[in-house]
Amino acid sequence: MELARRVAHMCGTGGNGWELLIRARGMIAAGEPVTMLSIGEPDHKTDPMILAAMAQSAASGHTGYTEIQGIRALREEIAARVTARTGVPTGPEHVLVTPGGQAALFTAHQLLLDPGDAGLFIAPYYATYPGTIRAAGAEAREVVALPQDGFQPKAAAIRAAAPGAKTLLINSPNNPTGVVYTPETIADIAAACEAEDLWLISDEVYETQVWEGPALSPRALPGMAERTVVLGSLSKSHAMTGSRIGWMIAPEAVVQAGFELALNSTYGVPGFIQDAALFALRRGASFEAAVAAPFRRRREIVRRVLGQVPGLRLIPPSGAMYAMLDIRETGLSGAAFASRLLDEEKICVMPGESFGAPAAGHLRIALTLEDAALEAALIRLRDFAAALLR
Amino acid sequence: MELARRVAHMCGTGGNGWELLIRARGMIAAGEPVTMLSIGEPDHKTDPMILAAMAQSAASGHTGYTEIQGIRALREEIAARVTARTGVPTGPEHVLVTPGGQAALFTAHQLLLDPGDAGLFIAPYYATYPGTIRAAGAEAREVVALPQDGFQPKAAAIRAAAPGAKTLLINSPNNPTGVVYTPETIADIAAACEAEDLWLISDEVYETQVWEGPALSPRALPGMAERTVVLGSLSKSHAMTGSRIGWMIAPEAVVQAGFELALNSTYGVPGFIQDAALFALRRGASFEAAVAAPFRRRREIVRRVLGQVPGLRLIPPSGAMYAMLDIRETGLSGAAFASRLLDEEKICVMPGESFGAPAAGHLRIALTLEDAALEAALIRLRDFAAALLR
Repeated sequence: MELARRVAHMCGTGGNGWELLIRARGMIAAGEPVTMLSIGEPDHKTDPMILAAMAQSAASGHTGYTEIQGIRALREEIAARVTARTGVPTGPEHVLVTPGGQAALFTAHQLLLDPGDAGLFIAPYYATYPGTIRAAGAEAREVVALPQDGFQPKAAAIRAAAPGAKTLLINSPNNPTGVVYTPETIADIAAACEAEDLWLISDEVYETQVWEGPALSPRALPGMAERTVVLGSLSKSHAMTGSRIGWMIAPEAVVQAGFELALNSTYGVPGFIQDAALFALRRGASFEAAVAAPFRRRREIVRRVLGQVPGLRLIPPSGAMYAMLDIRETGLSGAAFASRLLDEEKICVMPGESFGAPAAGHLRIALTLEDAALEAALIRLRDFAAALLR
Repeated sequence: MELARRVAHMCGTGGNGWELLIRARGMIAAGEPVTMLSIGEPDHKTDPMILAAMAQSAASGHTGYTEIQGIRALREEIAARVTARTGVPTGPEHVLVTPGGQAALFTAHQLLLDPGDAGLFIAPYYATYPGTIRAAGAEAREVVALPQDGFQPKAAAIRAAAPGAKTLLINSPNNPTGVVYTPETIADIAAACEAEDLWLISDEVYETQVWEGPALSPRALPGMAERTVVLGSLSKSHAMTGSRIGWMIAPEAVVQAGFELALNSTYGVPGFIQDAALFALRRGASFEAAVAAPFRRRREIVRRVLGQVPGLRLIPPSGAMYAMLDIRETGLSGAAFASRLLDEEKICVMPGESFGAPAAGHLRIALTLEDAALEAALIRLRDFAAALLR
């Protein structure tokens, strides 16, 4: 019995750091004290008040089918937040609520790409990007952002890859590099999309984690709202990863098509989770700043410990919950370094190679560990590297 | 800016009863007392104990990313339940937890159908079936089940439609007809699938609502487990529609592919909802019987009121929460009858035409209204029909 061709097409998205992660988890299961600097998830649980709002919504009877596009009050709240953050007039008709940011990513590519099209994405990249593009039957085509450019993608590289492409996926603040795209980069990307007639899919799930700004949303540039789909989520901004709630901001025709896809795929998002999300968003910017604060502090720790080490080059972490470290002068690949670091120091970081060739010889350090433990681990990582460099 | 071709392909799935539904909702919004016999959702809220289990899981910290295939304890519980119900040895490796039965339906077709393939489904059909098949880029091809056959599909009709098809989707107990497929029908379907080398996708979301059995799962027939994907859900069996949790039971390779699709689409189901589902399933068969009991009672009401009316023919309701009524002798179409019933009696039922041509001249009556109100509405419907027949 055969499976659809899209299955083979979708699977095997490369990334070779996952064996390492499995090995680390095995060591932990066997009782070894491994320090995990590899996890792309806030180390704090969802706030109890948000969970109480969810329980209250469910107990008061919001347990049946709900609006498939998302309940209106939540769409209005999301739209108002987008309007306030970007200045682009946005209404509930521009919002599709999805069961998580990944679902928004999937939806956008399903709506915009046909088999035979190419979808562009920037490398280094988040693990699911190529598979999600391929799940639409399309070719996932890499646009390289180079370490010597601070991992800022260049218009020339985008335009060179554009023939046959219909979409470009970007992510700023960026996972895995911790880089925020400069206003010049955003303007170049927008110009390239207009010149090559590409839809721009802008994954902005780290939008509340910006340490050096400004972080521009490309949708705010002239003419871009009509060709831009913005992906959002409460996973990182409100530490709600497990609630699986996010959204897509898009022209109304795209949202309407997204409603049709939702009707035929997820049939909407639980109403009590939508009510929890509404409660969470209404807590406003100060709550978001509080959720982001640990990563802001830890970014200072990583800069202090790793920022001035001869032979190591820290990519200036300007956003998100990651720092990228160039360890090429040690003579090791990222994978070899990470493997030895796990064996010898019991510290797990992700090899840059997991995120695509341009991050080879780098490590991604997730700042998702309590400050003191993070600092101690970073010092051991630094000393381990220094011994290799001696 | 163009959308993907799959969008136009997916939309416009026919069904012409939705205007009626919108009109009824408008009347209610305007303050008119419309009796809704049109809703495919239990009229009871989710049980407070299940909601308490969910709140407890969330409060105790199950708010982060979880196993994308579904937490192991839940998959084991679902597998044990399937084994007990069907006798087919089923393990957690055969289970993919999905955000609802519709997501399982979507997943199965995405995994098994490529663009250019045809996917078969039985008419009359549940509203999302054709769109879900088309969302995989495939042709949604109807196999007609006739009223004179009691809406039992025939092997000859399946085999005649099979050239170019890779899948057959069935649903028993059936929405919209309220029919349970006989063991002969299930055996014929299985034989047709083997003869034509089709995957069988068996939507069994009404499995706990069987009033006249036996209700056989085709996966239990010899040789069928390897070509059958069973879709399940807690929406109907546990009145958990709004929790969006269901599953797919399939050969391990299909489940593994489903994991990859989930990785690239939903990224799993909230852990606290999975814990609530586990709690719900562990309440066992007596709880399921209690949730089904109102529909069992109401089925008797509909038989008593509509079963012996000259000029009306009640399709014997043997399962699910619906009854199908043949009103062709009134000379009206289902749509015309339903429209007049809404205007003159303020009762909303779904015209059979909404579910495909073979149900033309029929009405689907949802038994999702409290007993006394249901009986009163059915009596008015009967009298309205009798006046037409006079």
